[in-house]
Amino acid sequence: MSNPSLVLNKIDDISFEEYDSPVIDTPYDVIVEVKKTGICGSDIHYYAHGKIGPFLLTKPMVLGHESAGIVSQVGSSVTGLKVGDNVCIEPGLPSRLSDEYKSGKYNLCPHMAFAATPNSTEGEPNPPGTLCKYYKCPEDFLVKLPSHISLELGALVEPLSVGVHASKLAKISLGDNVIVFGAGPVGMLAAASAKSFGASNVLIVDIFDDKLAMAKKIGVATHTFNSKTEGNVDELLAKFEGHHPTVVLECTGAGPCINMGIAALAPGGRYVQVGNAPGPVSFPITEFATKELTMHGSFRYGYNDYKTGVAILDKNYKNGKENAPIDFEALITHRFKFKDAIKAYDLVRGGNGCVKCIIDGPE
Amino acid sequence: MSNPSLVLNKIDDISFEEYDSPVIDTPYDVIVEVKKTGICGSDIHYYAHGKIGPFLLTKPMVLGHESAGIVSQVGSSVTGLKVGDNVCIEPGLPSRLSDEYKSGKYNLCPHMAFAATPNSTEGEPNPPGTLCKYYKCPEDFLVKLPSHISLELGALVEPLSVGVHASKLAKISLGDNVIVFGAGPVGMLAAASAKSFGASNVLIVDIFDDKLAMAKKIGVATHTFNSKTEGNVDELLAKFEGHHPTVVLECTGAGPCINMGIAALAPGGRYVQVGNAPGPVSFPITEFATKELTMHGSFRYGYNDYKTGVAILDKNYKNGKENAPIDFEALITHRFKFKDAIKAYDLVRGGNGCVKCIIDGPE
Amino acid sequence: MSNPSLVLNKIDDISFEEYDSPVIDTPYDVIVEVKKTGICGSDIHYYAHGKIGPFLLTKPMVLGHESAGIVSQVGSSVTGLKVGDNVCIEPGLPSRLSDEYKSGKYNLCPHMAFAATPNSTEGEPNPPGTLCKYYKCPEDFLVKLPSHISLELGALVEPLSVGVHASKLAKISLGDNVIVFGAGPVGMLAAASAKSFGASNVLIVDIFDDKLAMAKKIGVATHTFNSKTEGNVDELLAKFEGHHPTVVLECTGAGPCINMGIAALAPGGRYVQVGNAPGPVSFPITEFATKELTMHGSFRYGYNDYKTGVAILDKNYKNGKENAPIDFEALITHRFKFKDAIKAYDLVRGGNGCVKCIIDGPE
Amino acid sequence: MSNPSLVLNKIDDISFEEYDSPVIDTPYDVIVEVKKTGICGSDIHYYAHGKIGPFLLTKPMVLGHESAGIVSQVGSSVTGLKVGDNVCIEPGLPSRLSDEYKSGKYNLCPHMAFAATPNSTEGEPNPPGTLCKYYKCPEDFLVKLPSHISLELGALVEPLSVGVHASKLAKISLGDNVIVFGAGPVGMLAAASAKSFGASNVLIVDIFDDKLAMAKKIGVATHTFNSKTEGNVDELLAKFEGHHPTVVLECTGAGPCINMGIAALAPGGRYVQVGNAPGPVSFPITEFATKELTMHGSFRYGYNDYKTGVAILDKNYKNGKENAPIDFEALITHRFKFKDAIKAYDLVRGGNGCVKCIIDGPE
Repeated sequence: MSNPSLVLNKIDDISFEEYDSPVIDTPYDVIVEVKKTGICGSDIHYYAHGKIGPFLLTKPMVLGHESAGIVSQVGSSVTGLKVGDNVCIEPGLPSRLSDEYKSGKYNLCPHMAFAATPNSTEGEPNPPGTLCKYYKCPEDFLVKLPSHISLELGALVEPLSVGVHASKLAKISLGDNVIVFGAGPVGMLAAASAKSFGASNVLIVDIFDDKLAMAKKIGVATHTFNSKTEGNVDELLAKFEGHHPTVVLECTGAGPCINMGIAALAPGGRYVQVGNAPGPVSFPITEFATKELTMHGSFRYGYNDYKTGVAILDKNYKNGKENAPIDFEALITHRFKFKDAIKAYDLVRGGNGCVKCIIDGPE
Repeated sequence: MSNPSLVLNKIDDISFEEYDSPVIDTPYDVIVEVKKTGICGSDIHYYAHGKIGPFLLTKPMVLGHESAGIVSQVGSSVTGLKVGDNVCIEPGLPSRLSDEYKSGKYNLCPHMAFAATPNSTEGEPNPPGTLCKYYKCPEDFLVKLPSHISLELGALVEPLSVGVHASKLAKISLGDNVIVFGAGPVGMLAAASAKSFGASNVLIVDIFDDKLAMAKKIGVATHTFNSKTEGNVDELLAKFEGHHPTVVLECTGAGPCINMGIAALAPGGRYVQVGNAPGPVSFPITEFATKELTMHGSFRYGYNDYKTGVAILDKNYKNGKENAPIDFEALITHRFKFKDAIKAYDLVRGGNGCVKCIIDGPE
Repeated sequence: MSNPSLVLNKIDDISFEEYDSPVIDTPYDVIVEVKKTGICGSDIHYYAHGKIGPFLLTKPMVLGHESAGIVSQVGSSVTGLKVGDNVCIEPGLPSRLSDEYKSGKYNLCPHMAFAATPNSTEGEPNPPGTLCKYYKCPEDFLVKLPSHISLELGALVEPLSVGVHASKLAKISLGDNVIVFGAGPVGMLAAASAKSFGASNVLIVDIFDDKLAMAKKIGVATHTFNSKTEGNVDELLAKFEGHHPTVVLECTGAGPCINMGIAALAPGGRYVQVGNAPGPVSFPITEFATKELTMHGSFRYGYNDYKTGVAILDKNYKNGKENAPIDFEALITHRFKFKDAIKAYDLVRGGNGCVKCIIDGPE
Repeated sequence: MSNPSLVLNKIDDISFEEYDSPVIDTPYDVIVEVKKTGICGSDIHYYAHGKIGPFLLTKPMVLGHESAGIVSQVGSSVTGLKVGDNVCIEPGLPSRLSDEYKSGKYNLCPHMAFAATPNSTEGEPNPPGTLCKYYKCPEDFLVKLPSHISLELGALVEPLSVGVHASKLAKISLGDNVIVFGAGPVGMLAAASAKSFGASNVLIVDIFDDKLAMAKKIGVATHTFNSKTEGNVDELLAKFEGHHPTVVLECTGAGPCINMGIAALAPGGRYVQVGNAPGPVSFPITEFATKELTMHGSFRYGYNDYKTGVAILDKNYKNGKENAPIDFEALITHRFKFKDAIKAYDLVRGGNGCVKCIIDGPE
């Protein structure tokens, strides 16, 4: 069977290709017909630069890793899913034997094969991306979507899981006051996750007022702060109305945000680094030590995070879209057909006020 | 009753003074006759610079906060101690009503009165230091020393508790491979603490070979590394013989050590910042995030750390000094009478190969 | 100043007495004019039996420990409260020096003086209850009520904190499926707490249909089960619609409930024992071990639980009473003036469909 | 290749059989030549009763699951082991896709295939036991033995891991005072594990003085108590010389021991149930709740426990057998050749003062 796919050949070069469809290999394999795929900043980075950190594009690679679709075929031992089920796809497959996988931290597995992330070892193929018609995945890396959650929302589970993972590392619970740096898709969904874990107050920080306004409007933040126009950490604390910040989720990687986060936290606070920086940053290590802060690095997501992401959507929409505390759909600002996927990539690459852009699967 | 005391008047100016002895005030107060006091780097810093960070010396202050002594008087409600007991003194008194105190993190209490740490608020006295004959302390901030632990070792409990606190934050247990940066008194005792919490291997890093040799000889380290002469992180890992570092205890505050510590840790590792730096450091934030490290700031010690410190000494010496796995006494390289205390301060200030210098109490 | 008080003299003997008002003693003391007090099952137990477990009534005791009121006087060092503030009263004062207090588990302090709980030591007075006009309490055992939380709701914080404490022990979070045994006030508020901590589904179990109906109506439970009429554990699981129970909060102390809870839990589940039993129960220890369950005993509440209780009310009512997810006020089924307090006690003692009965403070 | 094996056919019927050797199937498979196998109480139970709880012997089964041996063949992707390495064998294989496996609790996996534990599903074979010449196992369920650890000690890692698992659940660390009930092999090794995790004092309880004497002699216990002849919980506490028990490891399943353990624990203590009971026990649930104890069920072992077991042996013997704090070898009281394996089973079945009996592999 033919498998139309969107392929990044090299920098600035994306094309449509027809590959062979994947076939069921082990009894736990499932074939998913991909229906909705979000564009991630990393996709754009490979498109524009051909690499991210140690990951270097050396051969053509199918793009896409934020996807949901419909089960079209199941292996003989699959019991939890059946043809026709709506699912979201967890796009990274670790080694089943690794210590990291066994201990729930499979995001740290050195043998991870992550969709649309280049494998620069010669002779080894790139892990396939999800921007294709048929995608193969073991049963346990698919999560069934409840009937009231659309496939489009299903495609948001991937970036939402990044926020879930960070929120779990921070142990966010009832009564926490959380500051999120960055109001892009990851920051927005980290804030949504923080709220879903019970945070009492969430202040989101960015340099664009329209993003801050959106964060408040869609219900992920109770407070906002423009770090370009509203001042420094004292003004930030004032804007938080006396709530002592207990948690920071840093989703920008920008030095000034990192320093503002450390300065804002109350003694004993928890800080999670989600965003990446282009290089080392200047870090207030003595303040960090004497306030006895805790900092966690956060990388992708691991055990149970995808299921928690779906649980957040499930709970949010259980009383109908009109009563949903958070309007996740508003984050999807642009939509394209598969045949216009390259236009979609160029639009996102140009910025253009896009929060999340979703591409339909091939027809 | 007269209370001979060693007083830092201002920079470069220490004198002996006769004050009035403290008197029992609440039924839980205890008067200790101080017998042994260690000199801490912070004492020297006040002597030479008159301040540490926000703490500014503005009026005379009795020095000393690493002490052990003998109970000489007890309040009417004291039940756990009696006159004649040997005790070590925990030198910081937090507010009994603070959230920090209630949650076991009293080291973070903003109302802490810490011995020989200036209170620069006008009209308020400095918290008394322990370099005097009689020191008043509530019962629960004294820990009784077992009969086989000398008063001199009791004076080591204060810096040992710093290592205990860091080791607890790092959750060091059986099977951990720990790297300690810094082979001064704090680093040595942090290494001793790591070993006592069950670390399988402890590598200590310094730039002086004699300190490294001592760390190995007295039994606190299984491996050593001279970061000045033996190379970079690859050489460090080679020297650790393939043991994957799971924990770093950073006791120097030096930028290169901090960076080497982050680079050396295996993914998922725990890092504790004990040492202070004079300013911000360049920090590899993206490596930190993608390896999902955890970093804890560590400041002094809190709930139960002093008792754990005494438990470490107790266990170490339970089969006699000759069978003790760690030779704590070897850390005490210099000893002075009270009347020679100023000479002691000058000696330590000059370096002179001193690890820990102990001053006797007034006769 | 006179302090009208409701006094339990001995079994079946309650009277109104005029005592002297308490006076400020330490700079952290606060005098509260008590306005609302709930009747607790323990009050009724002392009224009917004169003892609970080891606590034996041997002299007259002011009743009441579930109270809220208005600050009428503050000590010289009180900074967090001022005259006129609405507060709820945490009624147990531990020793400030105890290990239990220092480690946040002050509910376990052997020196606890708990309001309206007899002190049977000869010569020592009973800790005063709160059913009086003026009650003295240190600042840090009072929690200020937000302006949109009534004093009546403030009186519910005490039993709510019991549920908060149990929920924290169980680490209830997003995605948990919780079974609560008992739909009396404690069970209802434990269910409310579980929901507030993020539980996805809460099934409440009782033997009275009207209580179960109330639990669903006021929003604390998503599912109900009548263990007398609806069957055994298989029927319970069926009623829970395939949600794997991850947590049990047992608030009855009844042997059949305890056993049903253990049987219902999925492997790895957490079980919290809140309710007390009159004697030992038959316990399935091997099933407990092979399913690797965890069981926590839960006793009253400790560090920060009261504040979390107020945070739950705050969040629940922040969008107005009409949008509140949980109708806490519906739990208050009966209200009495202070002069009718004895009638109130007799009513609750008789059952009469009372969930929570609130008595006004003296005028 | 022929594979001599010891087979339990049915109750009271063991025979030697020649089966075909296993062959490498996946690239991660390893063939081990089994050299040493301990007899476990469960083996004897199947021999005498044909079942344990839900596990029913319905067809012949190779016995043995406590084994160590030498790698004789490795699959093409095996990198951590090579032919000739000494290894101990972790005998239970969970589903690689299960949630339990992913979260480190694979002992709870419902699809576990455990060596020498019957699979009573018709048509499905019993998981092979290790009492044979060649045993197949994936690389990651083997742990390499350090050169100074004998194969005989390697066979002890299985029951030692049971103690490791319990000690981790109890979070045993420096300063804990641990009571172990039962001085059979599991209790002895649980005590050894508790000591290795840093317990300050370990009191072991049994009804046989010779076992208690052995526990003290080989260095796993600092205190002993004969619960038959030395009295009740007050005498037990007296014998523990004032050390407040913080942890109980219950390895008998006997009702009186369970109750004595709960009674002995200080408030806030941790209790781990390792032993199984034939039925429900009478349990002091109210004392459990009001002392806020925590109880963990412990079942076999999971993530990293085997490696920790080897780490314990490694550390214990690192300074030579003569300086080892614990004499593990003394637990091996009987040794048999493979050809005498049936005699070995009959000896252990009869009791005869046997602690651990080891059978050599076939020649």
